[in-house]
Amino acid sequence: MASAIVFIGAGPGAADLITLRGARRLAEAEVVLFDALTDPALRDLAPQARWIDVGKRGFGDSTGQTRINALLVRFARQGLRVVRLKGGDPSVFGRLEEELAALAEAGLPSEVVPGVTAALAAAAGTRRPLTRRGSGRSVSLSTAMTREGRLQAGRSADTEVFYMAGRQLAALSRRLREAGWSGDTPTSVVSRAGWPDQLASEHRLADLAAASVLHAGRPTVVIVGVGAGAVLAGDSQAPETRAWAATPEQTPSP
Amino acid sequence: MASAIVFIGAGPGAADLITLRGARRLAEAEVVLFDALTDPALRDLAPQARWIDVGKRGFGDSTGQTRINALLVRFARQGLRVVRLKGGDPSVFGRLEEELAALAEAGLPSEVVPGVTAALAAAAGTRRPLTRRGSGRSVSLSTAMTREGRLQAGRSADTEVFYMAGRQLAALSRRLREAGWSGDTPTSVVSRAGWPDQLASEHRLADLAAASVLHAGRPTVVIVGVGAGAVLAGDSQAPETRAWAATPEQTPSP
Repeated sequence: MASAIVFIGAGPGAADLITLRGARRLAEAEVVLFDALTDPALRDLAPQARWIDVGKRGFGDSTGQTRINALLVRFARQGLRVVRLKGGDPSVFGRLEEELAALAEAGLPSEVVPGVTAALAAAAGTRRPLTRRGSGRSVSLSTAMTREGRLQAGRSADTEVFYMAGRQLAALSRRLREAGWSGDTPTSVVSRAGWPDQLASEHRLADLAAASVLHAGRPTVVIVGVGAGAVLAGDSQAPETRAWAATPEQTPSP
Repeated sequence: MASAIVFIGAGPGAADLITLRGARRLAEAEVVLFDALTDPALRDLAPQARWIDVGKRGFGDSTGQTRINALLVRFARQGLRVVRLKGGDPSVFGRLEEELAALAEAGLPSEVVPGVTAALAAAAGTRRPLTRRGSGRSVSLSTAMTREGRLQAGRSADTEVFYMAGRQLAALSRRLREAGWSGDTPTSVVSRAGWPDQLASEHRLADLAAASVLHAGRPTVVIVGVGAGAVLAGDSQAPETRAWAATPEQTPSP
């Protein structure tokens, strides 16, 4: 029987945000298919393996997915120990279902190792928990863009986290206010969450567009509502735009 | 200056679901305050530290939180390297904000290391991604119970994940159908997600109460909607109750 193809969530950024289980499975791999967003330092965890870049830079969009599926099946049938390494968590915006289905169709076993998704790293990096006892009981993770390229965003949870919204900040702000969020709602924008060069900024929802320049060209999550508000005393007023870097010493302190 | 108190997400279960960064910070700790839900095997990562159980078993509810805050401040002021280890991810239903606020008030620095939250481990363990391209663009994480002990659950996302809902399955099913979900909606229930003894079962939403016995007394998440549906061929029909264990060999295969 072929070994299971192992899908591993690499975490959102820096290589040390992978889980121990993920790191151990990587160390046993013979072939690793990885995405553009994963940290090159992860290669040190599996120097013995053949690393194949299947990220968007390497392949065009939908042809890409078909080709990835075919590669997974081919390597597994050769009896190789295959790891499919995905940025963040494979079960959240990872298109995992398409690869699982391809393997199932080929009769090949699979295993999924979870990872830290970007929203959790953004919350950790800004020390702003997504839930708050008494006031923040629900968190929504969504993409603002539909498959057809339309922007959809409403009001469904105490804290809303939007993935891949960095290019639509002005439209997102407008759409959310139309859906009933006040222009004064705390909003934080975090790019490269979990990486050493993470950047975070905070805004009134109405002023969200001001974040566009700071985070341009970087993978970005936008957090709106209760979970975007500051916890730390002295960091809790001043809803104007403000940016800070990832290391504890540089974050605003009480 | 005191070293930063490090909040670490231990992940949802088995010790090897902690991140490498979390494991490294643990290895440097002198005192570890931990919750009941974290894996005892994590102690092997920091045998040098003094481990203090501050889980619900050790302390009563709200007094507990005050006492935890006081312990964190006291140990940090003694110049000790303090780790606060929380099950899952500290930013999701971890009451992290209360501990961060206490440290800020005491003028003590802090750092947060994210972890895998239970919803992600449940999705990985059942190989049912929470998002699906084209049909599942939003995921909601929430507790079904309010602080006042009322059950609240609506329809806000394509996939709804309820934490700590194991004791209210019949009421949750009723409430969700009142909110517009069809009784035929795929629903999966996963207890001890990420642990070797994880159990998962699938149901029609209308039959959710049938899961109560199987998962009784175990930390449980309930997944409703798109993300609860099977991906694998041959595992995609039959919405009746069915249970399976965590290891790949025992999961239903195509």
